[in-house]
Amino acid sequence: MKISILTLFPQMFEGLFSHSILHQAQKNNVVEYNVVDFRDYSKDKHGRVDDYPYGGGGGMVLTPQPLFDAVEDLRSQETESPRVVLLCPQGEKYTQQKAEELSREKNLILLCGHYEGYDERIREHLITDEISIGDFVLTGGEIGAMVIADSITRLLPGALGNDTSAVTDSFSTGLLEYPHYTRPADFRGFKVPEVLTSGHHAKIDQWRREESLKRTKERRPDLLEKAELTEEEKKKFLNK
Amino acid sequence: MKISILTLFPQMFEGLFSHSILHQAQKNNVVEYNVVDFRDYSKDKHGRVDDYPYGGGGGMVLTPQPLFDAVEDLRSQETESPRVVLLCPQGEKYTQQKAEELSREKNLILLCGHYEGYDERIREHLITDEISIGDFVLTGGEIGAMVIADSITRLLPGALGNDTSAVTDSFSTGLLEYPHYTRPADFRGFKVPEVLTSGHHAKIDQWRREESLKRTKERRPDLLEKAELTEEEKKKFLNK
Repeated sequence: MKISILTLFPQMFEGLFSHSILHQAQKNNVVEYNVVDFRDYSKDKHGRVDDYPYGGGGGMVLTPQPLFDAVEDLRSQETESPRVVLLCPQGEKYTQQKAEELSREKNLILLCGHYEGYDERIREHLITDEISIGDFVLTGGEIGAMVIADSITRLLPGALGNDTSAVTDSFSTGLLEYPHYTRPADFRGFKVPEVLTSGHHAKIDQWRREESLKRTKERRPDLLEKAELTEEEKKKFLNK
Repeated sequence: MKISILTLFPQMFEGLFSHSILHQAQKNNVVEYNVVDFRDYSKDKHGRVDDYPYGGGGGMVLTPQPLFDAVEDLRSQETESPRVVLLCPQGEKYTQQKAEELSREKNLILLCGHYEGYDERIREHLITDEISIGDFVLTGGEIGAMVIADSITRLLPGALGNDTSAVTDSFSTGLLEYPHYTRPADFRGFKVPEVLTSGHHAKIDQWRREESLKRTKERRPDLLEKAELTEEEKKKFLNK
Protein backbone atom coordinates (compact mmCIF):
# COMPACT_ATOMS: atom_id res chain seq x y z
CA MET A 1 0.00 0.00 0.00
CA LYS A 2 1.14 3.53 -0.77
CA ILE A 3 0.04 6.48 1.38
CA SER A 4 0.81 9.92 -0.01
CA ILE A 5 0.45 12.94 2.24
CA LEU A 6 0.13 16.45 0.86
CA THR A 7 1.18 19.02 3.43
CA LEU A 8 2.92 22.37 3.92
CA PHE A 9 4.83 20.92 6.88
CA PRO A 10 6.53 17.74 5.61
CA GLN A 11 9.02 17.80 8.50
CA MET A 12 6.19 17.20 10.97
CA PHE A 13 6.10 13.58 9.74
CA GLU A 14 9.81 12.88 10.14
CA GLY A 15 9.54 11.64 13.71
CA LEU A 16 6.57 9.41 12.97
CA PHE A 17 7.90 7.73 9.85
CA SER A 18 11.51 7.32 10.96
CA HIS A 19 10.70 5.68 14.31
CA SER A 20 8.41 3.16 15.92
CA ILE A 21 6.20 0.64 14.19
CA LEU A 22 5.48 2.70 11.09
CA HIS A 23 9.18 2.95 10.32
CA GLN A 24 9.49 -0.81 10.68
CA ALA A 25 6.49 -1.40 8.42
CA GLN A 26 7.97 0.77 5.69
CA LYS A 27 11.36 -0.95 6.01
CA ASN A 28 9.62 -4.31 5.60
CA ASN A 29 7.85 -3.09 2.42
CA VAL A 30 4.45 -3.44 4.04
CA VAL A 31 3.68 0.20 3.23
CA GLU A 32 5.24 3.16 1.44
CA TYR A 33 4.84 6.69 2.82
CA ASN A 34 5.24 9.55 0.39
CA VAL A 35 5.22 12.98 2.03
CA VAL A 36 4.84 15.80 -0.51
CA ASP A 37 5.12 19.55 0.11
CA PHE A 38 2.37 20.93 -2.10
CA ARG A 39 3.96 24.34 -2.06
CA ASP A 40 6.32 22.85 -4.66
CA TYR A 41 3.37 22.80 -7.08
CA SER A 42 2.49 26.48 -6.66
CA LYS A 43 2.62 28.44 -9.92
CA ASP A 44 2.80 31.70 -7.98
CA LYS A 45 6.23 33.26 -8.39
CA HIS A 46 6.59 33.63 -4.61
CA GLY A 47 5.39 30.07 -3.98
CA ARG A 48 2.21 31.25 -2.30
CA VAL A 49 -0.52 28.68 -1.68
CA ASP A 50 -3.13 30.81 0.09
CA ASP A 51 -4.95 34.09 -0.45
CA TYR A 52 -7.54 36.36 1.20
CA PRO A 53 -11.10 35.05 1.41
CA TYR A 54 -13.76 36.45 -0.92
CA GLY A 55 -16.35 38.25 1.15
CA GLY A 56 -13.88 39.26 3.85
CA GLY A 57 -13.17 37.79 7.27
CA GLY A 58 -10.06 36.72 9.16
CA GLY A 59 -7.56 34.06 8.12
CA MET A 60 -6.27 32.92 4.76
CA VAL A 61 -7.74 30.31 2.42
CA LEU A 62 -5.81 27.64 0.47
CA THR A 63 -6.07 28.28 -3.27
CA PRO A 64 -7.11 25.42 -5.57
CA GLN A 65 -4.23 25.42 -8.08
CA PRO A 66 -1.35 23.84 -6.08
CA LEU A 67 -3.53 21.08 -4.63
CA PHE A 68 -5.20 20.23 -7.95
CA ASP A 69 -1.82 20.03 -9.67
CA ALA A 70 -0.24 17.97 -6.88
CA VAL A 71 -3.10 15.44 -6.79
CA GLU A 72 -3.13 15.15 -10.57
CA ASP A 73 0.61 14.54 -10.62
CA LEU A 74 0.28 11.78 -8.02
CA ARG A 75 -2.69 10.26 -9.85
CA SER A 76 -0.77 10.14 -13.12
CA GLN A 77 1.84 7.91 -11.44
CA GLU A 78 -0.70 5.22 -10.52
CA THR A 79 -2.65 2.75 -12.62
CA GLU A 80 -5.65 2.81 -10.25
CA SER A 81 -6.99 6.25 -9.38
CA PRO A 82 -6.39 6.69 -5.65
CA ARG A 83 -8.96 7.98 -3.20
CA VAL A 84 -8.25 11.53 -2.08
CA VAL A 85 -9.06 12.17 1.58
CA LEU A 86 -9.43 15.68 2.95
CA LEU A 87 -8.82 16.05 6.69
CA CYS A 88 -11.32 18.59 8.02
CA PRO A 89 -13.66 19.14 10.97
CA GLN A 90 -16.71 18.94 8.69
CA GLY A 91 -15.84 15.44 7.50
CA GLU A 92 -17.26 12.03 8.32
CA LYS A 93 -16.21 10.93 11.82
CA TYR A 94 -13.25 8.54 11.62
CA THR A 95 -13.83 5.07 13.08
CA GLN A 96 -12.18 1.66 13.11
CA GLN A 97 -14.63 0.58 10.38
CA LYS A 98 -13.35 3.38 8.15
CA ALA A 99 -9.75 2.38 8.95
CA GLU A 100 -10.54 -1.17 7.83
CA GLU A 101 -12.18 0.09 4.64
CA LEU A 102 -9.25 2.35 3.74
CA SER A 103 -6.70 -0.37 4.55
CA ARG A 104 -8.03 -2.34 1.57
CA GLU A 105 -7.03 0.41 -0.90
CA LYS A 106 -3.85 0.18 -2.96
CA ASN A 107 -3.22 3.91 -2.93
CA LEU A 108 -4.38 6.73 -0.77
CA ILE A 109 -3.80 10.48 -0.89
CA LEU A 110 -4.26 12.41 2.36
CA LEU A 111 -4.66 16.15 2.11
CA CYS A 112 -3.68 18.29 5.09
CA GLY A 113 -4.90 21.85 5.10
CA HIS A 114 -4.13 24.44 7.68
CA TYR A 115 -6.46 26.18 10.08
CA GLU A 116 -7.42 28.96 7.71
CA GLY A 117 -9.55 26.70 5.53
CA TYR A 118 -9.69 25.31 1.98
CA ASP A 119 -11.20 26.90 -1.11
CA GLU A 120 -14.54 25.16 -1.49
CA ARG A 121 -13.76 24.05 -5.05
CA ILE A 122 -11.14 21.69 -3.66
CA ARG A 123 -13.86 20.01 -1.63
CA GLU A 124 -16.32 19.94 -4.53
CA HIS A 125 -14.12 18.82 -7.41
CA LEU A 126 -10.91 17.22 -6.19
CA ILE A 127 -11.50 14.93 -3.27
CA THR A 128 -13.37 11.65 -2.78
CA ASP A 129 -13.65 11.56 1.04
CA GLU A 130 -13.77 14.02 3.93
CA ILE A 131 -12.69 12.78 7.32
CA SER A 132 -12.72 14.35 10.77
CA ILE A 133 -10.88 12.58 13.58
CA GLY A 134 -13.05 14.17 16.26
CA ASP A 135 -14.89 17.18 17.66
CA PHE A 136 -11.84 19.21 18.51
CA VAL A 137 -9.85 21.84 16.63
CA LEU A 138 -6.23 21.28 15.58
CA THR A 139 -3.79 23.72 13.98
CA GLY A 140 -3.83 21.66 10.77
CA GLY A 141 -4.65 18.35 9.13
CA GLU A 142 -1.23 16.79 9.76
CA ILE A 143 -2.03 15.02 13.03
CA GLY A 144 -5.26 13.70 11.50
CA ALA A 145 -3.21 12.29 8.61
CA MET A 146 -0.94 10.63 11.19
CA VAL A 147 -4.00 9.05 12.83
CA ILE A 148 -5.12 7.63 9.49
CA ALA A 149 -1.64 6.46 8.43
CA ASP A 150 -1.04 4.77 11.79
CA SER A 151 -4.44 3.11 12.17
CA ILE A 152 -4.34 1.77 8.60
CA THR A 153 -0.73 0.61 8.68
CA ARG A 154 -1.23 -1.55 11.76
CA LEU A 155 -4.03 -3.41 9.96
CA LEU A 156 -1.80 -4.36 7.01
CA PRO A 157 -0.56 -7.97 7.03
CA GLY A 158 2.97 -8.10 8.45
CA ALA A 159 2.92 -4.65 10.05
CA LEU A 160 2.70 -5.79 13.67
CA GLY A 161 5.14 -8.32 15.03
CA ASN A 162 2.39 -10.24 16.75
CA ASP A 163 -0.36 -11.02 14.27
CA THR A 164 -3.01 -11.64 16.94
CA SER A 165 -2.70 -8.19 18.50
CA ALA A 166 -4.67 -6.32 15.85
CA VAL A 167 -7.61 -8.63 16.37
CA THR A 168 -8.04 -8.60 20.15
CA ASP A 169 -7.68 -4.84 20.61
CA SER A 170 -10.48 -2.56 21.73
CA PHE A 171 -13.16 -1.88 19.12
CA SER A 172 -12.19 -4.95 17.13
CA THR A 173 -14.31 -7.06 19.51
CA GLY A 174 -16.85 -4.28 19.95
CA LEU A 175 -16.14 -4.13 23.72
CA LEU A 176 -13.61 -2.24 25.81
CA GLU A 177 -10.63 -4.30 26.94
CA TYR A 178 -10.48 -6.09 30.29
CA PRO A 179 -7.81 -4.95 32.82
CA HIS A 180 -4.26 -6.17 32.30
CA TYR A 181 -1.80 -7.04 35.08
CA THR A 182 1.85 -8.00 35.02
CA ARG A 183 4.70 -8.50 37.52
CA PRO A 184 5.15 -7.71 40.37
CA ALA A 185 2.12 -9.42 41.94
CA ASP A 186 2.34 -6.87 44.76
CA PHE A 187 3.35 -3.31 43.84
CA ARG A 188 3.41 -0.96 46.84
CA GLY A 189 0.64 -3.01 48.41
CA PHE A 190 -1.55 -2.96 45.28
CA LYS A 191 -2.19 -6.59 44.41
CA VAL A 192 -3.06 -8.52 41.25
CA PRO A 193 -6.55 -10.16 41.38
CA GLU A 194 -6.18 -13.73 42.65
CA VAL A 195 -8.01 -15.35 39.77
CA LEU A 196 -5.23 -14.29 37.35
CA THR A 197 -2.58 -16.21 39.28
CA SER A 198 -4.83 -19.25 39.85
CA GLY A 199 -3.83 -21.05 36.65
CA HIS A 200 -7.51 -21.87 36.10
CA HIS A 201 -7.98 -20.86 32.47
CA ALA A 202 -11.75 -21.14 32.21
CA LYS A 203 -12.14 -18.91 35.27
CA ILE A 204 -9.64 -16.40 33.90
CA ASP A 205 -11.53 -16.22 30.59
CA GLN A 206 -14.78 -15.74 32.43
CA TRP A 207 -13.33 -13.02 34.70
CA ARG A 208 -11.92 -11.17 31.68
CA ARG A 209 -15.17 -11.35 29.76
CA GLU A 210 -17.10 -10.04 32.77
CA GLU A 211 -14.63 -7.20 33.40
CA SER A 212 -14.75 -6.27 29.75
CA LEU A 213 -18.56 -6.19 29.82
CA LYS A 214 -18.63 -4.28 33.13
CA ARG A 215 -16.23 -1.62 31.88
CA THR A 216 -18.09 -1.25 28.60
CA LYS A 217 -21.38 -0.89 30.45
CA GLU A 218 -19.94 1.77 32.74
CA ARG A 219 -18.05 3.81 30.19
CA ARG A 220 -19.50 3.13 26.77
CA PRO A 221 -23.05 1.75 27.00
CA ASP A 222 -23.46 2.70 23.31
CA LEU A 223 -20.91 0.00 22.38
CA LEU A 224 -22.64 -2.62 24.51
CA GLU A 225 -25.89 -2.17 22.59
CA LYS A 226 -24.11 -3.17 19.38
CA ALA A 227 -21.91 -6.00 20.75
CA GLU A 228 -22.58 -9.72 20.39
CA LEU A 229 -23.73 -10.99 23.79
CA THR A 230 -25.03 -14.34 25.03
CA GLU A 231 -28.59 -14.47 26.37
CA GLU A 232 -27.26 -14.59 29.93
CA GLU A 233 -25.00 -11.58 29.34
CA LYS A 234 -27.88 -9.64 27.85
CA LYS A 235 -29.92 -10.25 30.99
CA LYS A 236 -27.09 -9.24 33.27
CA PHE A 237 -25.64 -6.26 31.41
CA LEU A 238 -28.46 -4.92 29.26
CA ASN A 239 -31.27 -5.59 31.75
CA LYS A 240 -33.12 -7.45 29.00
CA MET B 1 1.96 26.14 30.54
CA LYS B 2 4.16 23.06 30.69
CA ILE B 3 3.18 19.85 28.91
CA SER B 4 5.22 16.77 29.79
CA ILE B 5 4.91 13.67 27.66
CA LEU B 6 6.00 10.25 28.91
CA THR B 7 6.72 7.91 26.02
CA LEU B 8 8.99 5.10 24.83
CA PHE B 9 9.34 6.85 21.45
CA PRO B 10 10.48 10.41 22.21
CA GLN B 11 11.77 10.87 18.66
CA MET B 12 8.22 10.61 17.32
CA PHE B 13 7.63 14.14 18.67
CA GLU B 14 10.66 15.75 17.06
CA GLY B 15 8.89 16.72 13.86
CA LEU B 16 5.89 18.14 15.66
CA PHE B 17 7.72 20.26 18.21
CA SER B 18 10.49 21.51 15.95
CA HIS B 19 8.20 22.74 13.16
CA SER B 20 4.94 24.51 12.55
CA ILE B 21 2.88 26.47 15.03
CA LEU B 22 3.82 24.43 18.11
CA HIS B 23 7.48 25.17 17.54
CA GLN B 24 6.69 28.87 17.29
CA ALA B 25 4.59 28.79 20.45
CA GLN B 26 7.43 27.18 22.41
CA LYS B 27 9.93 29.70 21.04
CA ASN B 28 7.64 32.52 22.18
CA ASN B 29 7.43 31.04 25.70
CA VAL B 30 3.70 30.41 25.37
CA VAL B 31 4.23 26.74 26.23
CA GLU B 32 7.02 24.37 27.22
CA TYR B 33 7.08 20.80 25.91
CA ASN B 34 9.00 18.25 27.93
CA VAL B 35 9.31 14.86 26.24
CA VAL B 36 10.55 12.14 28.61
CA ASP B 37 11.56 8.57 27.76
CA PHE B 38 10.18 6.63 30.72
CA ARG B 39 12.49 3.74 29.98
CA ASP B 40 15.12 5.90 31.68
CA TYR B 41 13.26 5.30 34.96
CA SER B 42 13.27 1.50 34.72
CA LYS B 43 15.00 -0.21 37.64
CA ASP B 44 15.33 -3.40 35.60
CA LYS B 45 18.99 -4.00 34.73
CA HIS B 46 18.10 -4.44 31.05
CA GLY B 47 15.89 -1.35 31.06
CA ARG B 48 12.74 -3.38 30.51
CA VAL B 49 9.40 -1.61 30.96
CA ASP B 50 7.00 -4.44 30.12
CA ASP B 51 6.36 -8.04 31.11
CA TYR B 52 4.05 -10.97 30.34
CA PRO B 53 0.40 -10.63 31.39
CA TYR B 54 -0.84 -12.55 34.42
CA GLY B 55 -3.42 -15.05 33.29
CA GLY B 56 -1.83 -15.51 29.88
CA GLY B 57 -2.76 -14.09 26.50
CA GLY B 58 -0.88 -12.32 23.68
CA GLY B 59 1.08 -9.09 23.94
CA MET B 60 3.09 -7.50 26.70
CA VAL B 61 1.89 -5.25 29.52
CA LEU B 62 3.61 -2.07 30.80
CA THR B 63 4.82 -2.58 34.38
CA PRO B 64 3.93 0.01 37.03
CA GLN B 65 7.40 0.87 38.39
CA PRO B 66 8.92 3.03 35.60
CA LEU B 67 5.74 5.08 35.12
CA PHE B 68 5.15 5.63 38.84
CA ASP B 69 8.75 6.78 39.30
CA ALA B 70 8.68 9.03 36.24
CA VAL B 71 5.43 10.74 37.24
CA GLU B 72 6.61 11.19 40.82
CA ASP B 73 9.85 12.74 39.62
CA LEU B 74 7.95 15.21 37.41
CA ARG B 75 5.51 16.00 40.21
CA SER B 76 8.34 16.74 42.63
CA GLN B 77 9.55 19.49 40.25
CA GLU B 78 6.23 21.40 40.40
CA THR B 79 4.57 23.39 43.15
CA GLU B 80 1.07 22.45 41.95
CA SER B 81 0.43 18.74 41.45
CA PRO B 82 -0.18 18.30 37.70
CA ARG B 83 -3.02 16.29 36.22
CA VAL B 84 -1.84 12.99 34.76
CA VAL B 85 -3.66 11.99 31.58
CA LEU B 86 -3.56 8.44 30.26
CA LEU B 87 -4.20 8.07 26.53
CA CYS B 88 -6.26 4.93 25.99
CA PRO B 89 -9.26 3.65 24.01
CA GLN B 90 -11.28 3.16 27.21
CA GLY B 91 -11.00 6.83 28.18
CA GLU B 92 -13.43 9.71 28.05
CA LYS B 93 -13.96 10.90 24.47
CA TYR B 94 -11.82 13.97 23.75
CA THR B 95 -13.73 17.10 22.73
CA GLN B 96 -13.12 20.82 22.31
CA GLN B 97 -14.67 21.36 25.75
CA LYS B 98 -12.03 19.10 27.27
CA ALA B 99 -9.31 20.94 25.35
CA GLU B 100 -10.54 24.22 26.82
CA GLU B 101 -10.63 22.72 30.31
CA LEU B 102 -7.08 21.33 30.06
CA SER B 103 -5.74 24.58 28.55
CA ARG B 104 -6.45 26.28 31.89
CA GLU B 105 -3.99 23.98 33.75
CA LYS B 106 -0.47 25.12 34.60
CA ASN B 107 1.05 21.67 34.19
CA LEU B 108 -0.02 18.55 32.43
CA ILE B 109 1.50 15.09 32.15
CA LEU B 110 0.48 12.95 29.18
CA LEU B 111 1.16 9.26 29.40
CA CYS B 112 1.57 7.29 26.16
CA GLY B 113 1.36 3.54 26.42
CA HIS B 114 1.87 1.12 23.63
CA TYR B 115 -0.60 -1.26 22.07
CA GLU B 116 0.04 -4.09 24.48
CA GLY B 117 -1.72 -2.35 27.37
CA TYR B 118 -1.00 -0.90 30.83
CA ASP B 119 -0.92 -2.66 34.18
CA GLU B 120 -4.27 -1.81 35.73
CA ARG B 121 -2.62 -0.38 38.86
CA ILE B 122 -1.33 2.52 36.75
CA ARG B 123 -4.91 3.33 35.86
CA GLU B 124 -6.16 2.90 39.43
CA HIS B 125 -3.48 4.68 41.44
CA LEU B 126 -1.40 7.00 39.27
CA ILE B 127 -3.53 8.92 36.83
CA THR B 128 -6.22 11.59 37.16
CA ASP B 129 -7.79 11.42 33.67
CA GLU B 130 -8.25 8.88 30.90
CA ILE B 131 -8.76 10.22 27.40
CA SER B 132 -9.56 8.53 24.10
CA ILE B 133 -9.30 10.59 20.93
CA GLY B 134 -11.78 8.37 19.06
CA ASP B 135 -13.15 4.93 18.25
CA PHE B 136 -10.15 3.71 16.30
CA VAL B 137 -7.03 1.77 17.26
CA LEU B 138 -3.55 3.27 17.05
CA THR B 139 -0.17 1.61 17.62
CA GLY B 140 0.35 3.74 20.74
CA GLY B 141 -0.67 6.81 22.69
CA GLU B 142 1.81 9.17 21.01
CA ILE B 143 -0.49 10.52 18.29
CA GLY B 144 -3.21 11.04 20.89
CA ALA B 145 -0.74 13.07 22.97
CA MET B 146 0.01 15.13 19.85
CA VAL B 147 -3.72 15.79 19.43
CA ILE B 148 -3.96 17.03 23.01
CA ALA B 149 -0.75 19.11 22.88
CA ASP B 150 -1.79 20.73 19.59
CA SER B 151 -5.42 21.44 20.47
CA ILE B 152 -4.46 22.93 23.84
CA THR B 153 -1.51 24.98 22.59
CA ARG B 154 -3.56 26.79 19.96
CA LEU B 155 -5.95 27.95 22.70
CA LEU B 156 -3.18 29.58 24.75
CA PRO B 157 -2.98 33.38 24.48
CA GLY B 158 -0.31 34.34 21.95
CA ALA B 159 -0.02 30.91 20.31
CA LEU B 160 -1.74 31.78 17.03
CA GLY B 161 -0.63 34.79 15.03
CA ASN B 162 -4.20 35.88 14.42
CA ASP B 163 -6.05 36.02 17.74
CA THR B 164 -9.51 35.80 16.16
CA SER B 165 -8.87 32.47 14.45
CA ALA B 166 -9.25 30.31 17.53
CA VAL B 167 -12.70 31.73 18.15
CA THR B 168 -14.37 31.45 14.74
CA ASP B 169 -13.26 27.89 14.03
CA SER B 170 -15.59 24.92 13.84
CA PHE B 171 -16.94 23.69 17.19
CA SER B 172 -16.16 27.03 18.86
CA THR B 173 -19.45 28.39 17.44
CA GLY B 174 -21.17 25.02 17.75
CA LEU B 175 -21.76 24.89 13.99
CA LEU B 176 -19.72 23.63 11.05
CA GLU B 177 -17.94 26.32 9.08
CA TYR B 178 -19.40 27.95 5.95
CA PRO B 179 -17.57 27.40 2.62
CA HIS B 180 -14.49 29.52 1.94
CA TYR B 181 -13.43 30.86 -1.44
CA THR B 182 -10.36 32.72 -2.61
CA ARG B 183 -8.77 33.80 -5.90
CA PRO B 184 -9.12 33.06 -8.76
CA ALA B 185 -12.83 33.86 -9.13
CA ASP B 186 -12.94 31.33 -11.96
CA PHE B 187 -10.81 28.20 -11.62
CA ARG B 188 -11.18 25.80 -14.56
CA GLY B 189 -14.76 27.02 -15.00
CA PHE B 190 -15.64 26.53 -11.31
CA LYS B 191 -16.85 29.92 -10.10
CA VAL B 192 -17.05 31.69 -6.76
CA PRO B 193 -20.68 32.37 -5.61
CA GLU B 194 -21.70 35.85 -6.77
CA VAL B 195 -22.77 37.07 -3.35
CA LEU B 196 -19.17 36.88 -2.08
CA THR B 197 -17.92 39.32 -4.70
CA SER B 198 -20.93 41.66 -4.34
CA GLY B 199 -19.40 43.78 -1.58
CA HIS B 200 -22.75 43.65 0.23
CA HIS B 201 -21.67 42.71 3.75
CA ALA B 202 -25.05 42.04 5.29
CA LYS B 203 -25.91 39.66 2.44
CA ILE B 204 -22.52 37.95 2.76
CA ASP B 205 -23.05 37.42 6.49
CA GLN B 206 -26.51 36.03 5.87
CA TRP B 207 -25.27 33.70 3.13
CA ARG B 208 -22.49 32.41 5.38
CA ARG B 209 -24.81 31.84 8.31
CA GLU B 210 -27.25 29.95 6.08
CA GLU B 211 -24.51 27.80 4.52
CA SER B 212 -23.13 27.02 7.95
CA LEU B 213 -26.57 25.97 9.18
CA LYS B 214 -27.29 23.97 6.01
CA ARG B 215 -24.01 22.08 6.23
CA THR B 216 -24.45 21.37 9.93
CA LYS B 217 -27.99 20.12 9.32
CA GLU B 218 -26.80 17.82 6.53
CA ARG B 219 -23.69 16.43 8.19
CA ARG B 220 -24.02 16.88 11.93
CA PRO B 221 -27.65 17.30 12.99
CA ASP B 222 -26.51 16.45 16.55
CA LEU B 223 -24.57 19.74 16.68
CA LEU B 224 -27.55 21.72 15.38
CA GLU B 225 -29.69 20.55 18.29
CA LYS B 226 -27.24 22.11 20.74
CA ALA B 227 -26.44 25.34 18.84
CA GLU B 228 -27.90 28.77 19.58
CA LEU B 229 -30.42 29.55 16.83
CA THR B 230 -32.88 32.40 16.26
CA GLU B 231 -36.58 31.54 16.25
CA GLU B 232 -36.63 31.86 12.46
CA GLU B 233 -33.61 29.55 12.10
CA LYS B 234 -35.21 27.00 14.39
CA LYS B 235 -38.29 26.92 12.17
CA LYS B 236 -36.24 26.57 9.01
CA PHE B 237 -33.54 24.16 10.13
CA LEU B 238 -35.01 22.24 13.04
CA ASN B 239 -38.59 22.05 11.71
CA LYS B 240 -39.79 23.51 15.01
